[in-house]
Amino acid sequence: MKIGHKVWAIAEGYIPGYSNGPEPEMVSHETACILNAGDKEADVKITIFFSDKDPAGPYRITVPAMRTKHVRFNDLTDPQSIPRDTDYACVIESDVPVVVQHTRLDSRQAENALLSTMAFAVH
Amino acid sequence: MKIGHKVWAIAEGYIPGYSNGPEPEMVSHETACILNAGDKEADVKITIFFSDKDPAGPYRITVPAMRTKHVRFNDLTDPQSIPRDTDYACVIESDVPVVVQHTRLDSRQAENALLSTMAFAVH
Amino acid sequence: MKIGHKVWAIAEGYIPGYSNGPEPEMVSHETACILNAGDKEADVKITIFFSDKDPAGPYRITVPAMRTKHVRFNDLTDPQSIPRDTDYACVIESDVPVVVQHTRLDSRQAENALLSTMAFAVH
Amino acid sequence: MKIGHKVWAIAEGYIPGYSNGPEPEMVSHETACILNAGDKEADVKITIFFSDKDPAGPYRITVPAMRTKHVRFNDLTDPQSIPRDTDYACVIESDVPVVVQHTRLDSRQAENALLSTMAFAVH
Repeated sequence: MKIGHKVWAIAEGYIPGYSNGPEPEMVSHETACILNAGDKEADVKITIFFSDKDPAGPYRITVPAMRTKHVRFNDLTDPQSIPRDTDYACVIESDVPVVVQHTRLDSRQAENALLSTMAFAVH
Repeated sequence: MKIGHKVWAIAEGYIPGYSNGPEPEMVSHETACILNAGDKEADVKITIFFSDKDPAGPYRITVPAMRTKHVRFNDLTDPQSIPRDTDYACVIESDVPVVVQHTRLDSRQAENALLSTMAFAVH
Repeated sequence: MKIGHKVWAIAEGYIPGYSNGPEPEMVSHETACILNAGDKEADVKITIFFSDKDPAGPYRITVPAMRTKHVRFNDLTDPQSIPRDTDYACVIESDVPVVVQHTRLDSRQAENALLSTMAFAVH
Repeated sequence: MKIGHKVWAIAEGYIPGYSNGPEPEMVSHETACILNAGDKEADVKITIFFSDKDPAGPYRITVPAMRTKHVRFNDLTDPQSIPRDTDYACVIESDVPVVVQHTRLDSRQAENALLSTMAFAVH
């Protein structure tokens, strides 16, 4: 199935600087969940925007056909890691249609908090 | 009323592997809430996508006319149950227009956390 | 400003049956936040859908011009109150364009949890 | 990249009146995260709507080209601060396309809760 769009944006980005609870599931993290329901591999580029410096990236991700990949922003290291406790945003571009959803788990306090929203489908 | 779309996608899927609190309301779970506001029963097919293996399904759900059904992914067992602590995503197809919203209750820690978003309306 | 749509849907509805913390702000509740940014009063009808019985309503709400109203589903009583611990969904119809957002505060456990999403804009 | 829309709305607004935990990160707050992925500075006007009085604003924000700004409603003071424990909503207008996401951190109880959603893209 050809489902989704090729360009998505997430305006809210923030990786909390500390965590409570067992690793890796309870580490404070942000995720871009990417669904590629089509029959062609998706080459995905993520560009990170900051409040006070030039954008970073692109970070390159591959999502095989008929697969999902839940990308932790915490794990992005090439070309540079994403600083913690820092406001950011991102644009996600794919060469085939995908669907993108944004989630954060915040475990800075003893009990975790969650947020999630569909990303903004640009075109 | 004919309200909604026939194809929806949810890119974020994850059923936490453990829980705290009384059952069934405080069991960690994920839900696809489906609203069929029309006057014809909806035959719904859910296909589950994974990060590392072929899709599972379709899972078949019926939503009567003028009714809502809040489907717990935890309860889907035919053709196979959905593994816990595992990234997934899904595509939901209906033969009549419906509206789909995605919710998770995570009670792995002592106090529960919630997330929700409208699913992505494909067409 | 004429902003929004005249028909909206929320597929997820559930008022938790108990609460912790001071009233009224920490009572478990669900809200439909309605923004009427236009210069004409909005007459709004809410219809509630259930999993196992006929829809209830319409519930009638007025949102003055250039005002917002955050409607707690807990407070709807005419023609009947909405049962707690019960799955529901709703369709919201207005005679002028409005914007609708859905929020839940769940305080069943000692610490509250929150969810929110834009409602689905039908037309 | 020219990404987004020039007018956005958020129907849910509420800054909790008290907080737990270290400042500033754990102060209860609401944020409009604005991404300007284009190559022209964005002049942004925020108008706040209430349930029982005339709108306030516009509040003026500048988001440089290729930058994001996460605006805390708590910090808006000109022409007037936004009252706590008060229902509000807002319309956000930019002279160039931007993407807007709405987030709340509620730390009234010992453990924080989070909500987030894409704002409603008007045009």
